[in-house]
Amino acid sequence: MMKERFSKLLLGEDMSGSGKGVCTAVAISNAITNLYATVFGQNLRLEPLPPEKMSMWRKEMDCLLSVCDYIVEFSPSFSQNLQDRIVEVMTSTPRSDIYMNLPALEKLDAMLLDILDSFRDTEFWYAEQGSLSSDRTKSGSFRKVVSRNEEKWWLPVACVPTRGISEKSRKLLQHKRDCANQIHKAAMAINNGILADMKVPDTYMEALPKCGRASVGDAIYRYMITTERFSANYLLDCLNISSEHEALEIADRVEASMYTWRRKACINHSKSWDKIKNQMADGDKNDKNYILASRAESMLFCLKQRYPGLSQTTLDASKIQDNKDVGQAILESYSRVLEGLAFNIVAWIEDVLYVDSTTRQQDK
Amino acid sequence: MMKERFSKLLLGEDMSGSGKGVCTAVAISNAITNLYATVFGQNLRLEPLPPEKMSMWRKEMDCLLSVCDYIVEFSPSFSQNLQDRIVEVMTSTPRSDIYMNLPALEKLDAMLLDILDSFRDTEFWYAEQGSLSSDRTKSGSFRKVVSRNEEKWWLPVACVPTRGISEKSRKLLQHKRDCANQIHKAAMAINNGILADMKVPDTYMEALPKCGRASVGDAIYRYMITTERFSANYLLDCLNISSEHEALEIADRVEASMYTWRRKACINHSKSWDKIKNQMADGDKNDKNYILASRAESMLFCLKQRYPGLSQTTLDASKIQDNKDVGQAILESYSRVLEGLAFNIVAWIEDVLYVDSTTRQQDK
Repeated sequence: MMKERFSKLLLGEDMSGSGKGVCTAVAISNAITNLYATVFGQNLRLEPLPPEKMSMWRKEMDCLLSVCDYIVEFSPSFSQNLQDRIVEVMTSTPRSDIYMNLPALEKLDAMLLDILDSFRDTEFWYAEQGSLSSDRTKSGSFRKVVSRNEEKWWLPVACVPTRGISEKSRKLLQHKRDCANQIHKAAMAINNGILADMKVPDTYMEALPKCGRASVGDAIYRYMITTERFSANYLLDCLNISSEHEALEIADRVEASMYTWRRKACINHSKSWDKIKNQMADGDKNDKNYILASRAESMLFCLKQRYPGLSQTTLDASKIQDNKDVGQAILESYSRVLEGLAFNIVAWIEDVLYVDSTTRQQDK
Repeated sequence: MMKERFSKLLLGEDMSGSGKGVCTAVAISNAITNLYATVFGQNLRLEPLPPEKMSMWRKEMDCLLSVCDYIVEFSPSFSQNLQDRIVEVMTSTPRSDIYMNLPALEKLDAMLLDILDSFRDTEFWYAEQGSLSSDRTKSGSFRKVVSRNEEKWWLPVACVPTRGISEKSRKLLQHKRDCANQIHKAAMAINNGILADMKVPDTYMEALPKCGRASVGDAIYRYMITTERFSANYLLDCLNISSEHEALEIADRVEASMYTWRRKACINHSKSWDKIKNQMADGDKNDKNYILASRAESMLFCLKQRYPGLSQTTLDASKIQDNKDVGQAILESYSRVLEGLAFNIVAWIEDVLYVDSTTRQQDK
């Protein structure tokens, strides 16, 4: 198994062996994404992961993550030699981003699997949508099926006893939801951090519109440029975003404008954006492009907070596709799939809690 | 072990993980070269490989070669389905160059190790150069040390009994030398074939001199252009090549001229070299550049035959460094190290035979 996995990574998904495949970073990122889909893709309910999938996840992730053990940085350090003299030696330590984030991700991974594993002998259960009627018959009158996710027909439907689940179970469910929520936030924070660290591809910068206003649209631009006290949340409220799809489209446009304005600010001050951000005197911060870029940044931040399940923006996707750094590839993809799993667990628990509260209300 | 080996290959020898290392093809090629040096680098005598080195060679090569199992080509084939209809399906088969050469190389590998392994309880033995005098004392007057390789002081010196080795042993040694010689030729043929298949790097073509004559030198050029019946061997005899170093230099220059002339012939006929070679009418073959390129090719061929231990030419080295094809990388490096091992075994056996014949002559 391991030989096959590693060999395919080495071939960069190009089975012809001619080396025209993707680079290692992209190959590993895809491998983690695909492994997640294989292991968790059909698990759409609160129940322990089947043992064979659990062992597959552990073994293959172990394999993929092991590459991180060999990513090191060298730094000078001092040590005492036999003659008690202090000598300077180069020591290798794990790369700091890996050292900081990988153990955290492994912990989050284990916690999520523990949560799933705890759903044994639960008071709720699932009925497949297709088999609803037969299930209803079998289970008799004391069980009610509340169908919530009519728009998500592929999800199994949670069922609870007529009087709802016990107080104790409900408390426990709420506790697990809060846990999963925290895990989701932690994974998302790591993922955002890694994505922010990743290099913006040259192709993205080259394809940017010349004018940030055109990209973001007149309405948004006018609010961004005229207001004295800018509130990203107020602006988002005004936009009446109706779907995640629309939110993603706006995020893409705001992000593109942000980079256009940043570039203009950098050209005007012949400094890099990081320098501008850190070194600028307050007076300089009245620069129009600087203000617009900062406002776009805060708008993007609020958008991502409002839509925690938002798909990757065009920039994020192109960063991942263009990335050559193996360490970042592993951290980004690992945190991304954990973020997805945590998000799903929260949603599944909320499904059960919703069905439970509806059932209890009907019972009154 | 395997995880470490594969991880380092994936990182392309760049431990920082930033993906700035070499591509997979070069990483595997280097890994095979380095493994050979580690396992055989200090084994400079006819004796079985120490067990730990033997197992290291087998395990790690097994690991590196396993990548070939996943290099396939797809081809349409026909099969009968359950309804007895003939359907066309795509089947994957090992890539033909791997299918042709890898089993052969593995066979040559096993044969070489068998030859080394057969040197147990031999009638000859080795004295370290440094410990020669003490060894001579210890062994008494019936042992003579004949030092042949004074120019290769690092090689252990073969020793035989005063009357030489037995007739039977000598015959066996000669037989093994002939075997190793055949293996050497076979490995060299595979290596040359793979190198010929490998793409000539653009950088090499760009760096070619404009004029083949300048590169090859006036003397050689004059002979190549004026003779009616060109004999590469006669030309080589005239050159009085005094060392392998000189031979390699000439090979480099002849090869560069060959590509310069080929390029000119291609431009004149607006065809690729392969097409020119295969499709040209006999009349066209009077083209000056075509003749010169062909003569340079035969000269290069003869040079390589005369100096079977010749190092890589500049072109070969740059092909290997520039290669992206994982399959070719494995076949080239594997055949190259086996060629080296076979060459050494032949030389070591000839050392013993030389010492033996000298000793017997002294004994008369």
